[in-house]
Amino acid sequence: MQVVQILHMNKGDGQTSYARNSTVQRKSISISKPIIEKAVLELVGSNIMGIESMGIADLGCSSGPNTLLPISHIIDVIHAKPSEVTELRVSLNDLFSNDFSSIFMSLPSFYNKRKQDYDNGGDPNQHAINIYISAVPGSFYGPLFPRNSLHFVHSSFSLHWLSQVPNGLDNKGKCSISKSSPKCVLSAYSMQFQKDFSDFLRSRAQETVDGGRMVLSLMGRPSFDLTTEHEGTFYQFELLAQALMAMVSKGLIEEEKVNSFNMPYYTPYPEELNLVLDKEGSFIKDCIETFEVEWHSSGADINRNVGTFDDDQTITSSGQRLVTNTVRAVTESILEFHFGKGIIDVLFQIFEELVSEYLSNCTTTPKYTIFVISLIKKN
Amino acid sequence: MQVVQILHMNKGDGQTSYARNSTVQRKSISISKPIIEKAVLELVGSNIMGIESMGIADLGCSSGPNTLLPISHIIDVIHAKPSEVTELRVSLNDLFSNDFSSIFMSLPSFYNKRKQDYDNGGDPNQHAINIYISAVPGSFYGPLFPRNSLHFVHSSFSLHWLSQVPNGLDNKGKCSISKSSPKCVLSAYSMQFQKDFSDFLRSRAQETVDGGRMVLSLMGRPSFDLTTEHEGTFYQFELLAQALMAMVSKGLIEEEKVNSFNMPYYTPYPEELNLVLDKEGSFIKDCIETFEVEWHSSGADINRNVGTFDDDQTITSSGQRLVTNTVRAVTESILEFHFGKGIIDVLFQIFEELVSEYLSNCTTTPKYTIFVISLIKKN
Repeated sequence: MQVVQILHMNKGDGQTSYARNSTVQRKSISISKPIIEKAVLELVGSNIMGIESMGIADLGCSSGPNTLLPISHIIDVIHAKPSEVTELRVSLNDLFSNDFSSIFMSLPSFYNKRKQDYDNGGDPNQHAINIYISAVPGSFYGPLFPRNSLHFVHSSFSLHWLSQVPNGLDNKGKCSISKSSPKCVLSAYSMQFQKDFSDFLRSRAQETVDGGRMVLSLMGRPSFDLTTEHEGTFYQFELLAQALMAMVSKGLIEEEKVNSFNMPYYTPYPEELNLVLDKEGSFIKDCIETFEVEWHSSGADINRNVGTFDDDQTITSSGQRLVTNTVRAVTESILEFHFGKGIIDVLFQIFEELVSEYLSNCTTTPKYTIFVISLIKKN
Repeated sequence: MQVVQILHMNKGDGQTSYARNSTVQRKSISISKPIIEKAVLELVGSNIMGIESMGIADLGCSSGPNTLLPISHIIDVIHAKPSEVTELRVSLNDLFSNDFSSIFMSLPSFYNKRKQDYDNGGDPNQHAINIYISAVPGSFYGPLFPRNSLHFVHSSFSLHWLSQVPNGLDNKGKCSISKSSPKCVLSAYSMQFQKDFSDFLRSRAQETVDGGRMVLSLMGRPSFDLTTEHEGTFYQFELLAQALMAMVSKGLIEEEKVNSFNMPYYTPYPEELNLVLDKEGSFIKDCIETFEVEWHSSGADINRNVGTFDDDQTITSSGQRLVTNTVRAVTESILEFHFGKGIIDVLFQIFEELVSEYLSNCTTTPKYTIFVISLIKKN
């Protein structure tokens, strides 16, 4: 599977689109806001050479209402603080099949709103900064930008997607790391993650100026062991595998097809992150913080978060529907490539039933673990 | 009409797509190749400061098989000549609704092919250059890039599209400049073009380094007067207006709707181009050359040019079909916005009949006039 050409969040703004089903991701962005703010302020205050023309990149920007949030936040922070910055070169990156068109269509209103805010001049401290937004499609596990062209790099909810499924996996009836997978499966996934994360850091080290900053948030798990206590960090794909095997039982998919399918997805644990960061060595760790986000939120909360959709059905959706659509929005492109378009609706009907059953047996809502890492490029 | 948000060439690769109906545009690119080559070679040989990291922009890049041709050509020229250039920052620009997604999907094979060509090492003079491609959506009649970030700017078949339809046009039963339009219509179009072209030059002057180069090709007409001899430079929209009025006669469109419709399109004449270039004053004219391209080409020629489509119908298409699809591919977005989607198929059936009748009365195939302008940014 050529992840780099296939993987994308569900396009458009339909009921199963990523645009309508990315509340968990929005929470992650919200959680990392103070960490981003601190890093940006320290960067702007540091008077690094060439910062008049500041390069910012958002890696794995996806599409939908979340896409421009981190960038907007970063721009606001820079705008509000007197500094030498006169222009911001903003690069939005994601894989080639990302729905960039929908981002571009939203840019005129983004520019207009920023202009209005500035013309209304709420904050007298704000100074005029020219903003240039571009899109840079490609894999962030390789070079993307010219040398020393970036000052601030952000990536949210993307680095748990691997560059490829680890080679030679024997993970029958499962589609990711799982309590019942052979040890070698966990090890193969871990090796792939370490290689990918290291490639990511090495590429960014070339592209980021000395003293430049990077804030990364990604899904993870609290410890090496896949414990019942932290089942929320991996069990959604255990349920997806169960749904796939149920399709096999019904004769809708061949078992061989399921056995050869694995997600290019891995949730690292803190020691592993530290190991790669120390070994690669280009960045100083400012902080690594751990957060938890529930698999699904209450209706009121969702309503507040995805307020851009007037006819939004999710306001009244059940927990299992919210979890199902969240998983579907990010996995459909890969499932469709491997199994064909025909099975998707039925698969996620079964998946939703399994999620419902699972949630009814949980005493508390399962939680994803999210790491937010703040880094400084070494001199 | 918000041209900047609406105008785009027909998306995808269907029978009426721009991808399949842009042979005329491809000819224009082909015609300007030697002029681009000369300008690039002079630029690379000039050792302008900062040229190690060379900024190239293609403005109005559209989508389809033509999009990466000028950029490929420019890269090839730079690659083959020993120089200080170590990285190329390539920016593809078009309006927000351009089909950037299809360009991005073609990038992996573009990068692979370049890598293969380089690995096969045809030319021992070739030196390693890192290429970074990004997309910059927005109107080229305003700022798009950071100051002094570009060394070479190219634009093909785009500058005849205006930023807007001139205000207050009284051009009943016509949709562009026409022999029977009042003089004030021609004058309003001319003023709009001069303003737009001047805005274009002023924006690029900010963004282009001193000594930087620009090669622009655009549709034009040989003289101020709309002469029968050069009817090919404007008559396609005369026929489009006739088709719209035929729809009025059939009761399919309201006459008022046609009277209020005009294309944001203008073909300037040489004195007008020179006037704006001299008045704006940021660029030295290296050359302005004039070419002619027929409204349609022979089947064999088309076959050679659009060889990427295995099932291509256009190989056996008649002249009137080729002309119709060429006009449709570039005007449909604007017509659909003004008249609605429902009329498009019937409109172009009628248009094709009118083109057929017109062509049968022509002694030779009508020709578009194309100007290719090579400019040098003043120190």
